[in-house]
Amino acid sequence: MSQQRKRVRELGLSIGRFQPGPLNAITDVKGVSVGHCTLIEGTDVRTGVTAILPNSGDVYHQRVLGGGFVLNGAGEVSGLTQTMEWGLIETPILLTNTLSVGKCSDSLVKYMLNKHPSIGNRHDVVIPLVGECDDSWLNNIAKTSIRYEHVEAALNSARGGPVAEGNVGGGTGMITCDFKAGIGTSSRVVPIGKDGLSFTLGVLVMSNFGEMQDLCFGGLHVGRRLEPDYKSYVRRRENYGSIIAIIATDAPINSIQLNRLSKRVALGIGRTGSYAGHGSGEIVVGFSNANTVPREIKGDIVTLKELLDQKLNPLYAAAIETTEEAILNALCMAEDMSGYDDHIVPAIPLDKLQVILDQAKDLL
Amino acid sequence: MSQQRKRVRELGLSIGRFQPGPLNAITDVKGVSVGHCTLIEGTDVRTGVTAILPNSGDVYHQRVLGGGFVLNGAGEVSGLTQTMEWGLIETPILLTNTLSVGKCSDSLVKYMLNKHPSIGNRHDVVIPLVGECDDSWLNNIAKTSIRYEHVEAALNSARGGPVAEGNVGGGTGMITCDFKAGIGTSSRVVPIGKDGLSFTLGVLVMSNFGEMQDLCFGGLHVGRRLEPDYKSYVRRRENYGSIIAIIATDAPINSIQLNRLSKRVALGIGRTGSYAGHGSGEIVVGFSNANTVPREIKGDIVTLKELLDQKLNPLYAAAIETTEEAILNALCMAEDMSGYDDHIVPAIPLDKLQVILDQAKDLL
Amino acid sequence: MSQQRKRVRELGLSIGRFQPGPLNAITDVKGVSVGHCTLIEGTDVRTGVTAILPNSGDVYHQRVLGGGFVLNGAGEVSGLTQTMEWGLIETPILLTNTLSVGKCSDSLVKYMLNKHPSIGNRHDVVIPLVGECDDSWLNNIAKTSIRYEHVEAALNSARGGPVAEGNVGGGTGMITCDFKAGIGTSSRVVPIGKDGLSFTLGVLVMSNFGEMQDLCFGGLHVGRRLEPDYKSYVRRRENYGSIIAIIATDAPINSIQLNRLSKRVALGIGRTGSYAGHGSGEIVVGFSNANTVPREIKGDIVTLKELLDQKLNPLYAAAIETTEEAILNALCMAEDMSGYDDHIVPAIPLDKLQVILDQAKDLL
Amino acid sequence: MSQQRKRVRELGLSIGRFQPGPLNAITDVKGVSVGHCTLIEGTDVRTGVTAILPNSGDVYHQRVLGGGFVLNGAGEVSGLTQTMEWGLIETPILLTNTLSVGKCSDSLVKYMLNKHPSIGNRHDVVIPLVGECDDSWLNNIAKTSIRYEHVEAALNSARGGPVAEGNVGGGTGMITCDFKAGIGTSSRVVPIGKDGLSFTLGVLVMSNFGEMQDLCFGGLHVGRRLEPDYKSYVRRRENYGSIIAIIATDAPINSIQLNRLSKRVALGIGRTGSYAGHGSGEIVVGFSNANTVPREIKGDIVTLKELLDQKLNPLYAAAIETTEEAILNALCMAEDMSGYDDHIVPAIPLDKLQVILDQAKDLL
Repeated sequence: MSQQRKRVRELGLSIGRFQPGPLNAITDVKGVSVGHCTLIEGTDVRTGVTAILPNSGDVYHQRVLGGGFVLNGAGEVSGLTQTMEWGLIETPILLTNTLSVGKCSDSLVKYMLNKHPSIGNRHDVVIPLVGECDDSWLNNIAKTSIRYEHVEAALNSARGGPVAEGNVGGGTGMITCDFKAGIGTSSRVVPIGKDGLSFTLGVLVMSNFGEMQDLCFGGLHVGRRLEPDYKSYVRRRENYGSIIAIIATDAPINSIQLNRLSKRVALGIGRTGSYAGHGSGEIVVGFSNANTVPREIKGDIVTLKELLDQKLNPLYAAAIETTEEAILNALCMAEDMSGYDDHIVPAIPLDKLQVILDQAKDLL
Repeated sequence: MSQQRKRVRELGLSIGRFQPGPLNAITDVKGVSVGHCTLIEGTDVRTGVTAILPNSGDVYHQRVLGGGFVLNGAGEVSGLTQTMEWGLIETPILLTNTLSVGKCSDSLVKYMLNKHPSIGNRHDVVIPLVGECDDSWLNNIAKTSIRYEHVEAALNSARGGPVAEGNVGGGTGMITCDFKAGIGTSSRVVPIGKDGLSFTLGVLVMSNFGEMQDLCFGGLHVGRRLEPDYKSYVRRRENYGSIIAIIATDAPINSIQLNRLSKRVALGIGRTGSYAGHGSGEIVVGFSNANTVPREIKGDIVTLKELLDQKLNPLYAAAIETTEEAILNALCMAEDMSGYDDHIVPAIPLDKLQVILDQAKDLL
Repeated sequence: MSQQRKRVRELGLSIGRFQPGPLNAITDVKGVSVGHCTLIEGTDVRTGVTAILPNSGDVYHQRVLGGGFVLNGAGEVSGLTQTMEWGLIETPILLTNTLSVGKCSDSLVKYMLNKHPSIGNRHDVVIPLVGECDDSWLNNIAKTSIRYEHVEAALNSARGGPVAEGNVGGGTGMITCDFKAGIGTSSRVVPIGKDGLSFTLGVLVMSNFGEMQDLCFGGLHVGRRLEPDYKSYVRRRENYGSIIAIIATDAPINSIQLNRLSKRVALGIGRTGSYAGHGSGEIVVGFSNANTVPREIKGDIVTLKELLDQKLNPLYAAAIETTEEAILNALCMAEDMSGYDDHIVPAIPLDKLQVILDQAKDLL
Repeated sequence: MSQQRKRVRELGLSIGRFQPGPLNAITDVKGVSVGHCTLIEGTDVRTGVTAILPNSGDVYHQRVLGGGFVLNGAGEVSGLTQTMEWGLIETPILLTNTLSVGKCSDSLVKYMLNKHPSIGNRHDVVIPLVGECDDSWLNNIAKTSIRYEHVEAALNSARGGPVAEGNVGGGTGMITCDFKAGIGTSSRVVPIGKDGLSFTLGVLVMSNFGEMQDLCFGGLHVGRRLEPDYKSYVRRRENYGSIIAIIATDAPINSIQLNRLSKRVALGIGRTGSYAGHGSGEIVVGFSNANTVPREIKGDIVTLKELLDQKLNPLYAAAIETTEEAILNALCMAEDMSGYDDHIVPAIPLDKLQVILDQAKDLL
């Protein structure tokens, strides 16, 4: 049933106006690394953990600027309140299933305590960032399968370089617009101003929202075209869904600018077909690792370099198109999956998709 | 140069999954009326006022539930703070140019004082709702041409029935994605649940944002296709822009639900090509006139009928598609305009647009 | 060193204009119950869990309306994002130390899965509400002592009736304005309108913020008066602190009104001496159990009774004074504590406090 | 009836821990100037305009960093949306009565067009910042007496140096806790860190909220003590009220930090007795003129000096006490006033207040 998967760009669809970075992944942002731990066990466990490390150093001591946006808050990114207040990120970011947020948070605390015995003593405590979507259609979520070692494995396997997509890590059991999805990523190199400056921006999503009829590829209503083939397909119940998007950049932008950038990620989510359903947790976390904020600083005043607000428009446009492509990559790279309660979720059929995209070639 | 204008649906493009109301206008929501006062004077005055009245009664005494959302706050809807705090709308809503917000607010105060001599005495004061976009490319905005009589004319001409679109009222001098735009509207009849319930939802926009390369019609990148014809066209400066969207419904939803609905309007704005530029004020105001909240109520407790949150998804989807169509109607109905400083802004060429849409017919 | 502790009202100080309920506790709100599990082990474990159950039924199936406010977000209430989006609370609320949020969240998931095997299958998943403060001055927080059985014990011991205060539950190791504090509670019976209506409002705090010089009792700068006695006292480091406040009412108010009520709780926190320091997580969660929202509802529209906005002022005033008294009760009921790293935190000396309050008797 | 008025500090009450600047006024922040235009005409006009200029240069071209906070949004500061989005202030700030917001906004537009003919042409349009309270108990607000020349007079009279308080400018007809109030101001010199750094912070309020029974001076419940003398006093109706507070500093803080600082102003409002009533617009605007942001900047990246977040606590504490003192100054400096509809509002009686403060001397 499964077929060779390709990223959406390999199907000939180039989203937007900017060029991707060399990997077309969030790891094109220098210093960012990603690790997955995938749990596929028996007929009913289909879940996992994805870890995103914001910089190549130690993010607890070398904190990065952070922000975010809640498009629809029927979900959770634990720790987001502090990120929004301080404009800082000081832990790795984990993505997992809804009922494992607590376990992942607890595990990340223990992981960081091991690395930093000064936490809670000489140094401040930490509040981990853990985002979730509900994978209970394919995963026996009530089994709460995630354990410490899975979190540790995701963190320890985090690397720069290519990022596995589709049915991996936190995205293992996730579904988008009734097709199998999960983790997807994309990046852009964004020229700013007239002096040859350019910055890299990358998005990684754990994508799990929506209905087939709304799915768009580059604006094309692909879902409506495919839908007649799925008349007998038993889809998951309406209330499910969510998407967590992480946007990273090496542009020197502050936390307000990251909040604004994160809002544009929401527009990108909208372009692929989300209407941000009542039960869908659509939450964005953003960071810039251009400036680091050391935990211990001498003196009272810092000097920061910041991109001027009026120069941010290309980054805004890039945030939208990168998000769109990351979601489509999650769809195109995921394979068919059967799981809990005999549920089967098909991958989007790349052959038919290719036909549709080819027909539309001159129009896109 | 000008040509017969048509609404986008007349070009064969049906946006979304729901049917429009009989007028495909915000006035399909029972009780809503719209009036325009258009100022086109000499070679440099291209501006006006649009008034939206939320119900057929007297909104000062029979207030409606209100909410809103700020996608990008580089703009102004005076009075929005109170609407967000109280979840109520108690004045008509005016749309005009940026430098006339104060004049319109002051004029609406005077208009309401005339109608309600009890204001500031026996009854509370009012804070008018006045939204703006910057029309200074075509309009000599520094001339501050709007006077009391224009506001009065817009209010007094407010009617149910068909709504004039394009170069009228507050939209007279507005531009979208480098084509002439202005006022646009659309509506949907939205079935809810299984008991045959349905509600009407309408959107009216004053549309003034974006760049040609980003313009989409039903997902189709029309702007990119048209752009080669406009190589010598002198466009307005980057920092301009904005869109104010008003969403109205007769569904019995509360002010939180209106805030959430307003967020989905932002997704609709995004689908037509907005990246919510730094200088663009993209602000949504929403209201439901299903319940009215009298200024004077006996007793302490009210009984309200409310649509269940989990039944709102069709309204969310409808908010997006209605917004998209309202913006496209603004574009399709606006005519070429020359104005201030010899600036000329072309209407989107319907003949070429028709060709593109026809080519894509089987794909949309 | 320890002395007989009394609640602040027993010292002759009556805060505010309204009368407390019979218990002067959050449990005066009918249906609300509170349970504590206190961990005092060896010389270094000083922590625990407090559970608040919003109604006498099963809050997963009979949800209550919820809201909140973040005064300073350097803290965490996991699950708050969903509460703010939906205006609903569907789990008990737990309070604990910062590094045990994940453990408590994970434990509450397991507790609820035991009670509701339909979670993640026929019914939706849940996102627990877990708030925290940092007790690491007295508690060896890095030991992460909280386990599932402690969470279960707190939940299973939840009762109506009097609420233990001071060094109990989540408040075991907490400190306020350099004195030992922890859990405190208070309530008010609030008359509304002219028809003899009245509602009960209760606040429970886990209080852990501030500096001695700022501490006020009923406006009296008690901290400054006591400070000379504590010259040799080694206080905890500056960056610590936080307060989580839970406000409950049986008044039929909606989630926006709960958000607004929660803002007034922040004013009450301010009156006791908080300036909401940079590192202090000052977060409020509010709920009303007057209306319940069943998980499964037939039909599309609900009828809700709601208190009119303009009748809420007495509740706002009551929220402030109840919060103030709850914090002072936490201080007055807590006993001296020694703990981690040989740190000793004195209780506020009631004898000296009594003298100051007596002197000021005619002025308060 | 009137008596020699004094500022609260002259009565022997020193609020808080920091020292005021030389003038104990917002104008202690270098570059800030304030102007009033007071309208007292016939028996019924009691209103005016106050102008605050954020820096000594031209704020349109040399913009300052801005922020704000809405404690209760039943009021209006036109232009606040853009200030919150951009974190910039680019016009003077005006304070006036509710029904004159539009007139003041329109007048400020015209004033700025006169000064900057490039607005709307070569340069961007502007959205003025205009805040309001409702003075309709003493002022015949429906007469809409404010005209362009009053706005111009307030702006042109703006000076550094001492600031007139009480019944002046926008505060002319304002009332606080049933006593006559209006404009008040205060300042603090705030030491930061260990290197001898210090910054100045100033607050100016237009104060118009509250009930006598809640009024506190330095925590002392002065209102309750005075209330028996006012049994026959006809007070204004419940729903009235509001306070607009402007906080200025020369500390180099960014717009997020200004938002946070503005939240602490709300705590200061709370300390004087506000419960932020349903009908009270309690809105804070903050700015720092330490950095200016030129309208036209070469290059793409700026270098900013910023105070570290963890060093802001003294500023937070100072914001609270300065706000408290500014409100009390408004009360202590205002004189009795009779006005519209034969309403009479007494000043707070300084002789009795002095007695109360003297009694409490050793307790404060």
